[in-house]
Amino acid sequence: VSAHDGIRTLLQRYARAVDDRDIDTLAGLFDPAAVIVGARGTQSVEEWLDSMRAPRSFPVSMHVIGEPLIEGDAGSGRASADTYAVVYQLGEEGSGLTLGMRYLDEVAARGDGWVFVRRRSEMVWMR
Amino acid sequence: VSAHDGIRTLLQRYARAVDDRDIDTLAGLFDPAAVIVGARGTQSVEEWLDSMRAPRSFPVSMHVIGEPLIEGDAGSGRASADTYAVVYQLGEEGSGLTLGMRYLDEVAARGDGWVFVRRRSEMVWMR
Amino acid sequence: VSAHDGIRTLLQRYARAVDDRDIDTLAGLFDPAAVIVGARGTQSVEEWLDSMRAPRSFPVSMHVIGEPLIEGDAGSGRASADTYAVVYQLGEEGSGLTLGMRYLDEVAARGDGWVFVRRRSEMVWMR
Repeated sequence: VSAHDGIRTLLQRYARAVDDRDIDTLAGLFDPAAVIVGARGTQSVEEWLDSMRAPRSFPVSMHVIGEPLIEGDAGSGRASADTYAVVYQLGEEGSGLTLGMRYLDEVAARGDGWVFVRRRSEMVWMR
Repeated sequence: VSAHDGIRTLLQRYARAVDDRDIDTLAGLFDPAAVIVGARGTQSVEEWLDSMRAPRSFPVSMHVIGEPLIEGDAGSGRASADTYAVVYQLGEEGSGLTLGMRYLDEVAARGDGWVFVRRRSEMVWMR
Repeated sequence: VSAHDGIRTLLQRYARAVDDRDIDTLAGLFDPAAVIVGARGTQSVEEWLDSMRAPRSFPVSMHVIGEPLIEGDAGSGRASADTYAVVYQLGEEGSGLTLGMRYLDEVAARGDGWVFVRRRSEMVWMR
């Protein structure tokens, strides 16, 4: 599997784990020292996982994650990925929100996979 | 072309063929013994193709298929792909539906391409 | 980076540059002799870039570009790419349009990247 495909796999594993609320799998996708920057400010992995354990207003979500724009020499085991995503949050009786997100990630090769070392997420729009 | 790119090509050929209602091309994307599991129950390829020949309520569709999460040793010629898709169905005068789909596929290398051996499709949401 | 990944990178650079209104970067993504065919008819790169410099009704956009269906021997340095995209155009106070686009591109390898040699864009739907 090429470095680019390894990074795509990381992003898709993230999408399935976050949609399944699978906190253990999510934890394994981040370097233990990773930093997550987003709507809740700057968080450690532990803080961010705690916030993911909290009940949510929308019981079902679907993170449709686009193709990453990968910069840097991914063959060296470090790269940056700039990725658009559309997140569908579904509530009861057809209610819901749609978010346009942009993830700016630093990723690193670990063993036979890749992990997030730093993630900055920005909401571009919401409907 | 890598195994991963071969599987992506299969998924995109599916999208174009289903949006073009090109039944002959669709037939060539499945193993003749493939099984399709979805809203109509469990179907053979022939049964599924027949259901695709029926007139539809929405004359135009666009299957925007996301990046597959590929598991298994694709180099062996067999793999699983878990793929999100957003399907836009367009009717007259701007009416339409949008569906959030998840395709769980077993795929196999055949000649210089890949085919579906088993597909399970789930509708995650509809708007 | 494989030929397929080089073409994906071109498409994602296009998305970021068009969303950032970065005309200089956009100019570098096209062969100087490229032809662009779309809603404004057939344009040269210079004409098309001029039209991109004009003020727009929607200040923010997000071009979510799907996986390209790549045909031809990309290893030869020339290929065709057939790509679905969903374009979110955001206005003030939550107003906005969503467009389903199809890009039919001829692309060519140049140096260590890829460029558009010909682009035909079609709007499939608008909401």
